[in-house]
Amino acid sequence: MKKLKPEEDAFGQEILACHKGERASEIVERDDGYFDASPKGPKMYFSEYEDWLLVEKKAIEFVKGRVLDIGCGAGRHSLYLQENGFDVLGIDNSPLAIRVCKLRGLKKAEVMAIEDVNFKPDSFDTIIMMGNNFGLFGSFKRARRLVKKFHKMTSRNGLIIASTRDAYKTDNPDHLEYHRLNKERGRMGGQLRIRIRFRKYVGRWFDYLIVSKKEMKEILKETGWKIKEFIDSDDSEYVAIIQKNPTFQNDLEIP
Amino acid sequence: MKKLKPEEDAFGQEILACHKGERASEIVERDDGYFDASPKGPKMYFSEYEDWLLVEKKAIEFVKGRVLDIGCGAGRHSLYLQENGFDVLGIDNSPLAIRVCKLRGLKKAEVMAIEDVNFKPDSFDTIIMMGNNFGLFGSFKRARRLVKKFHKMTSRNGLIIASTRDAYKTDNPDHLEYHRLNKERGRMGGQLRIRIRFRKYVGRWFDYLIVSKKEMKEILKETGWKIKEFIDSDDSEYVAIIQKNPTFQNDLEIP
Repeated sequence: MKKLKPEEDAFGQEILACHKGERASEIVERDDGYFDASPKGPKMYFSEYEDWLLVEKKAIEFVKGRVLDIGCGAGRHSLYLQENGFDVLGIDNSPLAIRVCKLRGLKKAEVMAIEDVNFKPDSFDTIIMMGNNFGLFGSFKRARRLVKKFHKMTSRNGLIIASTRDAYKTDNPDHLEYHRLNKERGRMGGQLRIRIRFRKYVGRWFDYLIVSKKEMKEILKETGWKIKEFIDSDDSEYVAIIQKNPTFQNDLEIP
Repeated sequence: MKKLKPEEDAFGQEILACHKGERASEIVERDDGYFDASPKGPKMYFSEYEDWLLVEKKAIEFVKGRVLDIGCGAGRHSLYLQENGFDVLGIDNSPLAIRVCKLRGLKKAEVMAIEDVNFKPDSFDTIIMMGNNFGLFGSFKRARRLVKKFHKMTSRNGLIIASTRDAYKTDNPDHLEYHRLNKERGRMGGQLRIRIRFRKYVGRWFDYLIVSKKEMKEILKETGWKIKEFIDSDDSEYVAIIQKNPTFQNDLEIP
């Protein structure tokens, strides 16, 4: 992916503003004209362990060994793990977010988009995708291609810990209509085409994929990964603990 | 003003969603492409007395007699006053907001835009414009025309209680640039051209005027109104208690 310029790094700008103590909001625009603002705004990317969702607290207990944190934002999970003695690399496609991670003391942080992730075999024991970051897979095909890549990069007992939301657990008629629109155009129901707006900054459009458990299982079929367990919440959010089958030979060639 | 259709009543839609207990945000788009979301969202329009800003609590003590609440939203001030025995009429240009006011028990609530306000002489003792609603005056000229009208509509010792924000008390470079842009095009610095977005609803563009104390005094010059006192807050918000000079003859003919 071409590196984001500061003026198109709307996500990083909101993270940076929040880091500086400025009032900041996060506005998400969907390609059907639906606008939303997250209740806590970018502050949620800075939340301390005490304020995490219960599902995330439970999920973080599964982490072991060397960790890759994909879409690390302001580094809330990476910093927690680093403080607890883990060897953790945080990556994010936002240069400003990575700058904030470093300012906050994260030792290993790199600007990298998920599609550019490429590490040597056996580089990590755990890959975390928290805060709905299963979404960064973007689409069915891309998710399958990437988890196959992750299979090569991880150790024998590798884990992916990924958080998402069941798109279909909603009564909102706009969301239900969007699922229909998506299916009509050959996309997954919860394949959200969105961009971030912050003040006068407008981010690039990107696909963010939210999936039901059934869809997640479908994505993982014959990739060398399987669900170890789901951690449920009171609403549509859940975390999947995804376990590697070390003997599986997948067909992906790492360049 | 032409009555708003439900699909252009973005403000009312967010109020109604909030009334129904749905998660709702309020997004404000300015005509320079600046987006913002209020931290509390539409919930602030429902806030109970206990949660009001201290300046509003102090201001409400000045209310006397028959009250007109301009831009009453979900009716938080009107309902408080009604409970305390005042005869109060809440008006708002949003039909859905007025519907919610009635559902919440406000006895006198009407769909009416500020520019259409027209009551017989001596109809009210106090006009309140809380929650930054001095802004509804929209422009220097319109503010002057309307306060002259209010002069006729109010009793001898009439009061206007109006809340606003000093536009110039900011470090935000986007706001400072916007003030310059405004002055270039012959508008007041804090004359914000904005519209509300909520989900897929997009409101009409309108002018919302935020003013310094000096500008407010300028607006009130030779209108038959003068500042009785300002109630200050810790930041840029303040409330003006505006007192009528009953002997002033203003040049406005009420049709």
